[in-house]
Amino acid sequence: METYRQQFPALANKTYFNYGGQGPMPQAALAAIVAAYQQIQSQGPFGLKTNQLVAREAALTRQAIAQELGVTAATIALTENVTAGCNIALWGLNWQPGDRILLSDCEHPGVIASIGEICRRFGVVVNSFPLQATLETGDPVATITTHLQPQTRLVVLSHVLWNTGQVLPLAEITARIRQAQGEQPIRILVDAAQSVGWLPLNLAELGVDFYAFTGHKWWCGPEGVGGLYIHPETMASLEPTFIGWRGLDYSQPDLPFVIDARRYEVATSAYPLYAGLRAAIATHQTWGSAIDRAEKIVSLATYLWQSLQQVTGIKCLNELAPQSGLVSFQVATGNHAKLVKDLEDQHFYLRTIVAPDCIRACTHYFTTTAEIDELVGSLSQLIN
Amino acid sequence: METYRQQFPALANKTYFNYGGQGPMPQAALAAIVAAYQQIQSQGPFGLKTNQLVAREAALTRQAIAQELGVTAATIALTENVTAGCNIALWGLNWQPGDRILLSDCEHPGVIASIGEICRRFGVVVNSFPLQATLETGDPVATITTHLQPQTRLVVLSHVLWNTGQVLPLAEITARIRQAQGEQPIRILVDAAQSVGWLPLNLAELGVDFYAFTGHKWWCGPEGVGGLYIHPETMASLEPTFIGWRGLDYSQPDLPFVIDARRYEVATSAYPLYAGLRAAIATHQTWGSAIDRAEKIVSLATYLWQSLQQVTGIKCLNELAPQSGLVSFQVATGNHAKLVKDLEDQHFYLRTIVAPDCIRACTHYFTTTAEIDELVGSLSQLIN
Repeated sequence: METYRQQFPALANKTYFNYGGQGPMPQAALAAIVAAYQQIQSQGPFGLKTNQLVAREAALTRQAIAQELGVTAATIALTENVTAGCNIALWGLNWQPGDRILLSDCEHPGVIASIGEICRRFGVVVNSFPLQATLETGDPVATITTHLQPQTRLVVLSHVLWNTGQVLPLAEITARIRQAQGEQPIRILVDAAQSVGWLPLNLAELGVDFYAFTGHKWWCGPEGVGGLYIHPETMASLEPTFIGWRGLDYSQPDLPFVIDARRYEVATSAYPLYAGLRAAIATHQTWGSAIDRAEKIVSLATYLWQSLQQVTGIKCLNELAPQSGLVSFQVATGNHAKLVKDLEDQHFYLRTIVAPDCIRACTHYFTTTAEIDELVGSLSQLIN
Repeated sequence: METYRQQFPALANKTYFNYGGQGPMPQAALAAIVAAYQQIQSQGPFGLKTNQLVAREAALTRQAIAQELGVTAATIALTENVTAGCNIALWGLNWQPGDRILLSDCEHPGVIASIGEICRRFGVVVNSFPLQATLETGDPVATITTHLQPQTRLVVLSHVLWNTGQVLPLAEITARIRQAQGEQPIRILVDAAQSVGWLPLNLAELGVDFYAFTGHKWWCGPEGVGGLYIHPETMASLEPTFIGWRGLDYSQPDLPFVIDARRYEVATSAYPLYAGLRAAIATHQTWGSAIDRAEKIVSLATYLWQSLQQVTGIKCLNELAPQSGLVSFQVATGNHAKLVKDLEDQHFYLRTIVAPDCIRACTHYFTTTAEIDELVGSLSQLIN
């Protein structure tokens, strides 16, 4: 494992638990990025051959992502980040005054703000539903379905909750929403910031309409490359909003939108980063299968959760063993911001969460139990 | 000059005339990008110190851009590309059915498609006006003002036309539109793809509302970093559309939009590229002042234009000397696509333009007359 970890320079000088914020980029990813810059400069940077190269790079990247998500490349639009993907879905629906959005109480502030603006502009109404409270004993499926209303047109939720680490039973949720919907479909937008990159996925089976993700968290790719999956049967009812030449079909004289998910891509991006994301994904594949990696992540999170419970003054949000690599906890003294700063000064990297007020530590499959022991030891000293 | 040109690896193995497509990135830019990746990985990649680093990188980049544009950093939003900036302006206005957009006939297909979608969704009407025909003898100012209508709420045009290279008298156009407008302001959106990076600018004096640009063309920065200038007095009437955490003020509990142009920024970007753009801008500054560079570009374009006119079978679009680094021409045989391909096979990089059907060659300040002579020689051989 130590040899394997040496591929990630960020791990060398610290004890890292912020995988849900940003993953450490493997050397192979930076090397691929540099090589892509050099190739584009050598062949171009702008010309017939380079245009083909860049289109091929994008196609290979959609393909690599699609394979990990269990879908076809035609359903994947490359975006800059998760939030951009959510915005494409949110702004592309045909909103009517009185339409309702059902929004979980665990979503990211950026997505909430975008929904607020949609409500203001189009007379749409947002309802929140209490997902956070279902962490242990509640029933998220029932909670969602009981909050559906006849005017509900969109449900927005995360696959893995960024604050508590809860993994939602998305296939069951989708099935129940489909049962409940009337003549007009209820669209389902999933914030996949904390699931893509570690959770084994088969989106084709999950049946969600939109699944927005990023490459720079659990996949450990470069910041600035993400994507949006759009269900093939939903694509016709999602209009592009921000539009550019990448979404247009230049093979036809009137430049219609391309027929696949590229219609939601806009214009020039940092193409050399695409090779970096693919190199990061390939690095993980050398370690083990998606299922093996996920099991390792959860078992390390469980070890962390168990260890934290031994410390006087620490309370984990989870009363049962974690389902993901995210472990959130509170300390009796309550000053989480100061504690995270003190930990970073000692080279332990964690983050605070505002709601619920807590500290979040993440394990990846290459986290070591020694790292966890060191963190728990330092935490004990700092709070006692 | 040869030593200076060695800073741009892309210039080594070819004769490059596609600066309006993408500029060759100086070595200093790639070095700065790699160093930024290494610093972010070493300090983070996610943590309190890295969050500060990334915010500082963005601030320095807005500052460097603002200085080149003659405005304050508070008016600059960082975007992925020109088109993204245009979309922020287009989608953020308070459209009412019957409002009109006045659009030049020389705009980029991506912007045209975005306006088409706005018309479809909001009942807005678009009018085109014939800017292309004003290249030599027409009066662009009069052409625009005579096409204004009482319902016109937005004028969309480029500062430097990407097809013909014409430089529009933007200050005069803005002044005349201001005179013509009634109680409701007419907003002015400028596609600055072909002006930013070479044309000496003082946006504060030009008086336009929105000025969308990119770093990867004339500035020779990395692809994937651009920006949008928003006039400070216009900002209150331009709502953010695609919204994310970067646009929110976390110092206040209800997370309002930040008060400056950062409100239009969305979420995680390829931050390491910011240092690359600043390094590219700094490289140009070592060569000479903005005015010196612009004069050199136009004088080299003039030399190219004069040389092309000596070749039988070539007709330049410009009958008078060029005003920018863009020189477009037609060949009597008419097959421009094949000619551009044949030229690229000989390592001369140019591009075709669809309307008007032509070939475009660009000179930068570091273009050499020897390169121009070689291009014209090869062109003569290929078409005769």
